[in-house]
Amino acid sequence: VHFRATLAYDGTGFQGFQSQSAGARTVQGELEAALGRLAKGGRVAVHAAGRTDAGVHAVGQVACFDLPRTMDPVQLARALNAMLPADLRVLEAAESPAAFHARKSASSKLYRYVLDSGSVQLPTRRLFAGHIAFSLDHRTVAETAALYVGRHDFASLASSGGSAKTTTRTVFRAEARWEQPAPGTETLVFEAEADGFLRKMMRSMVGGLVAAGRGAMTVAELRRALDARDRSAWPPPAAARGLTLVRVEYDAVIR
Amino acid sequence: VHFRATLAYDGTGFQGFQSQSAGARTVQGELEAALGRLAKGGRVAVHAAGRTDAGVHAVGQVACFDLPRTMDPVQLARALNAMLPADLRVLEAAESPAAFHARKSASSKLYRYVLDSGSVQLPTRRLFAGHIAFSLDHRTVAETAALYVGRHDFASLASSGGSAKTTTRTVFRAEARWEQPAPGTETLVFEAEADGFLRKMMRSMVGGLVAAGRGAMTVAELRRALDARDRSAWPPPAAARGLTLVRVEYDAVIR
Repeated sequence: VHFRATLAYDGTGFQGFQSQSAGARTVQGELEAALGRLAKGGRVAVHAAGRTDAGVHAVGQVACFDLPRTMDPVQLARALNAMLPADLRVLEAAESPAAFHARKSASSKLYRYVLDSGSVQLPTRRLFAGHIAFSLDHRTVAETAALYVGRHDFASLASSGGSAKTTTRTVFRAEARWEQPAPGTETLVFEAEADGFLRKMMRSMVGGLVAAGRGAMTVAELRRALDARDRSAWPPPAAARGLTLVRVEYDAVIR
Repeated sequence: VHFRATLAYDGTGFQGFQSQSAGARTVQGELEAALGRLAKGGRVAVHAAGRTDAGVHAVGQVACFDLPRTMDPVQLARALNAMLPADLRVLEAAESPAAFHARKSASSKLYRYVLDSGSVQLPTRRLFAGHIAFSLDHRTVAETAALYVGRHDFASLASSGGSAKTTTRTVFRAEARWEQPAPGTETLVFEAEADGFLRKMMRSMVGGLVAAGRGAMTVAELRRALDARDRSAWPPPAAARGLTLVRVEYDAVIR
């Protein structure tokens, strides 16, 4: 029976959703171990919508797998949560058509990046937000975010090691907003929705916002760096801990 | 030289601000170790406004200590942060009058409790919010919060082990508000400001909100349980991880 599950995890203790290194603790590994017990020891392969890197969090990751038995989806979610560690939860499970694939069937993904600025970051926020000591110009950050919207070749924002065939993606929405979690502090919340993300593309987008927002590069220079399709032309990616996979969308037909 | 420092910490890895158990990792212990290095090995005793329990967080704890040397307060904060572990930060330091005592001079403290409700808690929130699987009635929660405001003998809400001479405290403000961090979830944010808090008093207040909000006790029954000055009459305290010491106020004269 083919299932789809919505997952949430604290990425702090995981070497990403999956990993090439033997022995690495991964979300996929924990999930497959729990599913293997439900399958009486049979191996159950899990596919996820987004292969989040080490330290990246999720509140709406989607995964799919085949279970060699029937099971009520509510019972399945409950049984998995009873076996999974506290930093990984199944929010919902559902039977899905055999043709459904968590990554290939996805029509869009929404990521959120949270970046605290100020001389000292609150320790209660350090695992779930990046941190810079300086402040950013709001207008320049908004202009840079607008640069990402549309269909572009994002080769400059992709790290090596990705498995994507092309580096062209369509960004439907890229928005920066500002919050003040405490007096004297400021937080950038950046959300981007696209038909797909290259490896480190979202964190590189934030790297661009920071470079422009602090005045290290102009928006025009970033535009040229994007057009150059050259990784070395782009500023470094932001830290993983500020990034969360928020939501994955599917066409109603396949869902 | 007498100093006052504003502290923030992630309480997850601490056995509270201070502890009776030898070898326990405490905020006081980490801070005194760092100050001892600045004092060239001399012992520096630290006093805090609130003796937060194990797992309780702070974004505005205040501590005071005597350092046997002069030091620019900005340099002092920077030097301490260079020595302290990542889950404990000095947000600000200042010289203060010799008569200043972080706890005894305090005129009020503000605590915040965050409580997620829903069948599954997001793992990214599990260290900084309590969790209940059921939902609470908003109006009953608001009525219960109002019960706490004013001057009362809070003996029913105090755990044993506190060192307070009397159990009477004045609550200036006790307010519940609601947030929806994700669709299908609901979060109670409860803030209380008082001239002082007994041990576990804030978490017991939240225990009362939960008991009334889910219908296990009526507001009238809670009022009688408060008047009874009997710990066993009161519902159990909420989990420590949802609690944060937000701010400590001092009269301008002594500050």
